[in-house]
Amino acid sequence: MSGEALYIVKIGGAVINDPEKLEAFLMSFAALSGKKLLVHGGGREASQLAETLGVKVKMIEGRRITDDNTIRIVTMVYGGLVNKRIVANLQAKGCSAIGLTGADGNLILSNKRPLKNGIDYGWVGDPIKVNDQLIQTLLEGDVTPIIAPLTHDGEGHVLNTNADTIANVIASSMVDHYDVNLVYAFELPGVMRDVNDSESVVNHIDPSKYTELKTSGVVVEGMIPKLDNAFEAINAGVKSVCIAHYTNIGKISDNSFDGYTRVTK
Amino acid sequence: MSGEALYIVKIGGAVINDPEKLEAFLMSFAALSGKKLLVHGGGREASQLAETLGVKVKMIEGRRITDDNTIRIVTMVYGGLVNKRIVANLQAKGCSAIGLTGADGNLILSNKRPLKNGIDYGWVGDPIKVNDQLIQTLLEGDVTPIIAPLTHDGEGHVLNTNADTIANVIASSMVDHYDVNLVYAFELPGVMRDVNDSESVVNHIDPSKYTELKTSGVVVEGMIPKLDNAFEAINAGVKSVCIAHYTNIGKISDNSFDGYTRVTK
Repeated sequence: MSGEALYIVKIGGAVINDPEKLEAFLMSFAALSGKKLLVHGGGREASQLAETLGVKVKMIEGRRITDDNTIRIVTMVYGGLVNKRIVANLQAKGCSAIGLTGADGNLILSNKRPLKNGIDYGWVGDPIKVNDQLIQTLLEGDVTPIIAPLTHDGEGHVLNTNADTIANVIASSMVDHYDVNLVYAFELPGVMRDVNDSESVVNHIDPSKYTELKTSGVVVEGMIPKLDNAFEAINAGVKSVCIAHYTNIGKISDNSFDGYTRVTK
Repeated sequence: MSGEALYIVKIGGAVINDPEKLEAFLMSFAALSGKKLLVHGGGREASQLAETLGVKVKMIEGRRITDDNTIRIVTMVYGGLVNKRIVANLQAKGCSAIGLTGADGNLILSNKRPLKNGIDYGWVGDPIKVNDQLIQTLLEGDVTPIIAPLTHDGEGHVLNTNADTIANVIASSMVDHYDVNLVYAFELPGVMRDVNDSESVVNHIDPSKYTELKTSGVVVEGMIPKLDNAFEAINAGVKSVCIAHYTNIGKISDNSFDGYTRVTK
């Protein structure tokens, strides 16, 4: 570890879908000092475009299937529309952003997901290798990578890839170069005991607390893979993993602020 | 000039539209040794998507207008679909490509085109500044930039920009760093006296020849802005400008081959 801090922020689709929320988030992100990197989700625009184009969303056992038409749409929307909107916006805020997919510069090589229980997920990638050198070169040149949730298979195909997973594997791959702080930013203040009570943030989750929260039903559904990713990152040497409101990402290094969830070993 | 060669290749939309032609071109491009950079046009996919989405192509006096819906579509298609298809394909050929728009890393800052004769062209950009340092950093890291025909205004907007112009301004901006060779690659062997006679390539065009070819009607329509760009590049210090078939780009440095058009002062 170099001792220099690197903030890796993942922003979810719900914030990306809302122009005012996206603007508020990008203001917070641009204001983060030091080295940083953003991983963005896709948002609903891909589904909206698919619907307009008459491309049916294929689901098998609750999982979305990425067929030929769908990978074209997500490549357009995630890699083109959403990514470049964020990049152009950040440039206007004086942040020298550069938008990338995992195919660019061989940033994230994935395995195309094999059949699981007979289900063909289509053009979906599970990351196997991150080009940490490229990320380091960009960061050392004071460039801020903005990464779309797409990877590639090294055989010419773009693959749809979960953004939380991308944030996790990038964070884990950068621990030899920086003190990595991973932040999952979304619309809530953190993991909540009661989503209707903003004072009910769980400030600290370690593995035993995680078990308790799952058992008691506080942590359910989408939060489970997010926390699984968080623990993986911590175990890989990431210094801190936080789950925070998208406007609070600049307050995480402020010791007097505790309105977010910190995940530790 | 460093004396090291840099090839800047512009590939047109007609080749991009045809998977077999694109594959043949990318084979030739990947095989070019040394430092190189690709600028790609848009192709018909943007018009096809616009048509499917019911977005009407607005033309005023024969010029396409880039309205709000159109800039969304070209950002998706040029910056996402086409750019990442090329990048993923080149990665599979062992060429470490990185896809960029002019917004990425502030690569190409443009002026949003002002009203001309009362015509509002919409979200169209005329380049004013190229980030040659970023291009140099990427090239020195053995990365090959793949540039979509999009720039930005520094105020958060992506702008539609002519690919020939982008190739020209990038070539002109790199002359202090490299011996720049600019190649406009397309479906014909070069500028032709008779498009039906493949032996009729005009091998060499200088300004007086250009005047003669325009007067005699050999050079018309789309070739005129291409040649205007070529002369601008030559006058800015670009070492050579060639117009060649998309499968011949590797033969330009071969002195025994003359099946293309060379533009000189």
